[in-house]
Amino acid sequence: MRGYTFYAKVSRVFQTYPSLSKLLVVSTVGGGSLLAFSDDRPFQRVSNDGGQKPECNKKKKVVVLGTGWAATSFLKNLKSDSYEVQVVSPRNYFAFTPLLPSVTSGTVEARSVVEPIRNIVKKRGYQIDFKEAECLKIDASKKILHCKSAQATNLGGKEEFTVDYDILIIAVGAQVNTFNTPGVSEYAHFLKEVEDAQKVRNTVIDCFERASLPSVSHEERKRILHFVVVGGGPVGVEFAAELHDIVVQDISKLYPSVSNLAKITLLEAGDHILNMYDKRITQFAETKFQRDGIDLKTGSMVTKVSEKDVSSKDRATGQCSTLPYGLVVWSTGIAPRPVILDFMKQIGQGSRRVLATDEWLRVEGCDNVYALGDCATINQRKVMEDISAIFGQAKTNDAGHLNKQEFREVIGDITERYPQVELYLKKSKVKNMVALLDKYEGEIDIEKFEKALSEVDTQMKNLPATAQVAAQQGEYLAKCFNRMEKCEMYPEGPRRFRTSGQHRFHPFRYIWKLKCKALGVKNQKLLKRKNMIKLMLTNFRYKHFGQFAPLGGEQTAAQLPGDWVSIGHSTQWLWYSVYASKLVSWRTRMLVVSDWFRRYIFGRDTSRI
Amino acid sequence: MRGYTFYAKVSRVFQTYPSLSKLLVVSTVGGGSLLAFSDDRPFQRVSNDGGQKPECNKKKKVVVLGTGWAATSFLKNLKSDSYEVQVVSPRNYFAFTPLLPSVTSGTVEARSVVEPIRNIVKKRGYQIDFKEAECLKIDASKKILHCKSAQATNLGGKEEFTVDYDILIIAVGAQVNTFNTPGVSEYAHFLKEVEDAQKVRNTVIDCFERASLPSVSHEERKRILHFVVVGGGPVGVEFAAELHDIVVQDISKLYPSVSNLAKITLLEAGDHILNMYDKRITQFAETKFQRDGIDLKTGSMVTKVSEKDVSSKDRATGQCSTLPYGLVVWSTGIAPRPVILDFMKQIGQGSRRVLATDEWLRVEGCDNVYALGDCATINQRKVMEDISAIFGQAKTNDAGHLNKQEFREVIGDITERYPQVELYLKKSKVKNMVALLDKYEGEIDIEKFEKALSEVDTQMKNLPATAQVAAQQGEYLAKCFNRMEKCEMYPEGPRRFRTSGQHRFHPFRYIWKLKCKALGVKNQKLLKRKNMIKLMLTNFRYKHFGQFAPLGGEQTAAQLPGDWVSIGHSTQWLWYSVYASKLVSWRTRMLVVSDWFRRYIFGRDTSRI
Repeated sequence: MRGYTFYAKVSRVFQTYPSLSKLLVVSTVGGGSLLAFSDDRPFQRVSNDGGQKPECNKKKKVVVLGTGWAATSFLKNLKSDSYEVQVVSPRNYFAFTPLLPSVTSGTVEARSVVEPIRNIVKKRGYQIDFKEAECLKIDASKKILHCKSAQATNLGGKEEFTVDYDILIIAVGAQVNTFNTPGVSEYAHFLKEVEDAQKVRNTVIDCFERASLPSVSHEERKRILHFVVVGGGPVGVEFAAELHDIVVQDISKLYPSVSNLAKITLLEAGDHILNMYDKRITQFAETKFQRDGIDLKTGSMVTKVSEKDVSSKDRATGQCSTLPYGLVVWSTGIAPRPVILDFMKQIGQGSRRVLATDEWLRVEGCDNVYALGDCATINQRKVMEDISAIFGQAKTNDAGHLNKQEFREVIGDITERYPQVELYLKKSKVKNMVALLDKYEGEIDIEKFEKALSEVDTQMKNLPATAQVAAQQGEYLAKCFNRMEKCEMYPEGPRRFRTSGQHRFHPFRYIWKLKCKALGVKNQKLLKRKNMIKLMLTNFRYKHFGQFAPLGGEQTAAQLPGDWVSIGHSTQWLWYSVYASKLVSWRTRMLVVSDWFRRYIFGRDTSRI
Repeated sequence: MRGYTFYAKVSRVFQTYPSLSKLLVVSTVGGGSLLAFSDDRPFQRVSNDGGQKPECNKKKKVVVLGTGWAATSFLKNLKSDSYEVQVVSPRNYFAFTPLLPSVTSGTVEARSVVEPIRNIVKKRGYQIDFKEAECLKIDASKKILHCKSAQATNLGGKEEFTVDYDILIIAVGAQVNTFNTPGVSEYAHFLKEVEDAQKVRNTVIDCFERASLPSVSHEERKRILHFVVVGGGPVGVEFAAELHDIVVQDISKLYPSVSNLAKITLLEAGDHILNMYDKRITQFAETKFQRDGIDLKTGSMVTKVSEKDVSSKDRATGQCSTLPYGLVVWSTGIAPRPVILDFMKQIGQGSRRVLATDEWLRVEGCDNVYALGDCATINQRKVMEDISAIFGQAKTNDAGHLNKQEFREVIGDITERYPQVELYLKKSKVKNMVALLDKYEGEIDIEKFEKALSEVDTQMKNLPATAQVAAQQGEYLAKCFNRMEKCEMYPEGPRRFRTSGQHRFHPFRYIWKLKCKALGVKNQKLLKRKNMIKLMLTNFRYKHFGQFAPLGGEQTAAQLPGDWVSIGHSTQWLWYSVYASKLVSWRTRMLVVSDWFRRYIFGRDTSRI
């Protein structure tokens, strides 16, 4: 109890003098204060008993499925106490997934990247009901979930139970996409869950231990120490880079007799790795991998994985080849989980590949169900679908014409409802929407209007399946829930074009908030070191940072909003500072930062536990 | 590579200015420098190429079985390069086992208590050959070991290979003694290996998660949250105490709806828990457990463990009872491993319960094989067995008599060869050995001599199966090996009574080195706080500390050499300082100390990974 007493005392001090909290950062983390400062307010305690409204009617049952980025972000931001929240997930913790490749090599420990979900919500000051169970089936018609407990069998068998809901929030994430390649689920390792990363770590050590045995032939040693990574996306690339680092920095000293036999091969079906990034990053990564001796096989489609071989086919020549391996890590993309596929069939989305929601994250074809994160995509409404409704709403007279003044009044609503409009204007370098109509003389009829906007929908983009998107969606939805009652009465969203009135809420919009321009950086140029330092110092003001691609050897590439690109050692420090600031709790922040120091001073731990 | 460069630079500085190393302690650990100082010299690098003798004959192959306390201590202390050392063990790391009960509750992380064996020997500056494999059979006649690789099967199947040796050092430890109680190996958890502790930790969380499910009845909840510990030794008691701490300090906040159902029962077959400790400690522990609500059932023999029940029998009344449980932890003692039992049969020790060695740790009945740690006991020679040989060696004349002057000359040899003599003198409060003969007038014949020494052998004691004993044995043996050549020529051991000449080495002697008298502490009294602080400050000068029994709630009992006893919060700090100083490397020391701080500030992690 003593530990808690100390903590309680400190908390009380910080509640009384909130300005002290910045001081604490300096005193705990010392020189690393930069790394540890964030916009979290860990010492704020939301009072549960004060300020409660009299309960006039029963609270609505909100069930959240999942404890990943989207669900956790939702739970962290939910402040309204007008819901009875239940969380169902087979994992009782939130995992900071972007650090999983670091866990595979022991740069960061598995325990450092997880935080119990009960701890997270406890800090929010309200009581949630968490069930460690997997949802097997969503019965949308009866508003019931069929769940199965996730604990070890010796406690009484895995039995099923049901949970009913008024509002369902699906945030179960996705599973690895094997593209039905034979042998993948049997023999390949993945990098989706914390357990996956731990298994990979132990298997890497296993490979080196086994190769050190006297009974193993030279050929077999070469096979065992051949590490194959399938998929040249950010996770696969980062894993290959981490693996290269551990071999060069640690294994070479501890297993000197066999470390020179280790080889890493990266198979990518496309023409380049990191193909969603800027070309300069791709090129830098490919050159670095070549220099590091990582064998990059682009244009190689894996056709089969067997116990000791990976078969692949060259897309250009059609030639098949077989690679003997010791460890194969599969990281090629995501696919919906079975429970989501089943749910899609129920609600008439059976023909779709992914669960679709509208721009307010509501599942299409189903009331009171929301879906966010990797398990769903936003089915953005096309301008062309609504073109006549927009035209009808815009014109105020009964004639079939629209003048520009009338059009100006709906522009705000259109750009909010259809975000592709803004992208289109930017892409085609048109100043504003009125300018689109400029080439037409006089009043605009429906045909001219259609023509002017006909190209807009080409700029529709799906959001990437990243932690950032999921976290922003969770935050967005929580904020909607917090203001539900208020917005029912005073809607704040854009105009409804098809019917009348306004939408309750603004639609979800992914925010690229980094204001690099403030740093005086020239567009389309690599960021220089002094700008990186400025970025590090200011990163806590901004919400998001584009995407990172750690490439090993303390080098990272970053693609920042506005086509900025940054590569090198200083970017690695930006990566350190961003990741440290984004960690979910002060505990994990302290652990991860101390893991980095430990790795720096003592190297990585190669114990096989 | 950057990390290594930094480390290499620092190492170089410290090699050049060795006196700086103390400075480093202060700068890294800050206020905790007390905790981290030890007699290790991590920055010393033993040159491998310099100072090597010309190899006139082939190096002897020394094979060490195991990577526990004894083996690691041997490897750390071996400095001679006249051996070719191979290590065979299924674990590629050393585990600081006394902290395993802390791992079960997450007070300390599993990774913090392990250190790769390759790392440990690398620092010693010589190359060892480590094989991650289990020894299945020792063939003493052919000097061959049959081993099986310990890696995952998908790397090519578990195959067998052989290793030959010139000198074998057996340090494989022991396994849990189930006393053939049915169901124990199927259903009970143990606390021998790191994996055991991790499993226990996850099962505890499983129990609370499962009890939180809506589908579980109240009765079932009570069963699931009933934790049964079998065995009231130090490990069982510490585990029960840690479990109580995590329930009170962490679980009660995170699982408020079910934490009040949790119950801990400790079953002990004897009349008291901690029966190898001083009575005051036992009493204190029993009172504390009673106050904490831990149900202590002494005199209870467990007869059977089934999937959901533990059956036990009261030794006094013979009454049988059944306890439903969620988790049962079995910690009742140790038994030899199968490979040792098989080896004992080969060398004619089949009728013994434990592998026997002589006082120089040489296995009886087998040449060039040493055994240390938990897998063997020293078969101390009785004075009575050698009484006539001693008498014969002592007397210088041909007559059948011995005078006291003659006797004085062999006293040193006798007390060294037969340590029970000293214990007997102390016990019977006789000043010295000559005084034993004082009651006999005139010259001493063999009969009088026998009579005088007849009681001595009652004081023979087996050494406890503790980490301290194993570590001291490893160090002792390494020092013998270091001076093997020298001592062959100039033996330093006691006189050989049965034959002639001297033993090569001094026999192994367990050292209780704590000089409490220096602190001015009165005998047979509880140590007071100021003395504890002195003890903490001076603990690094002394080798060993007796035994600790952490009792939870930041309280520990300690039995110190010379019948000193210390109980309470200050002893907990002594425990912290001793354990931190005894950790095998600076890395683990830093990790464990930061784990303690983390627990103190943030509580324990309840993520189920």
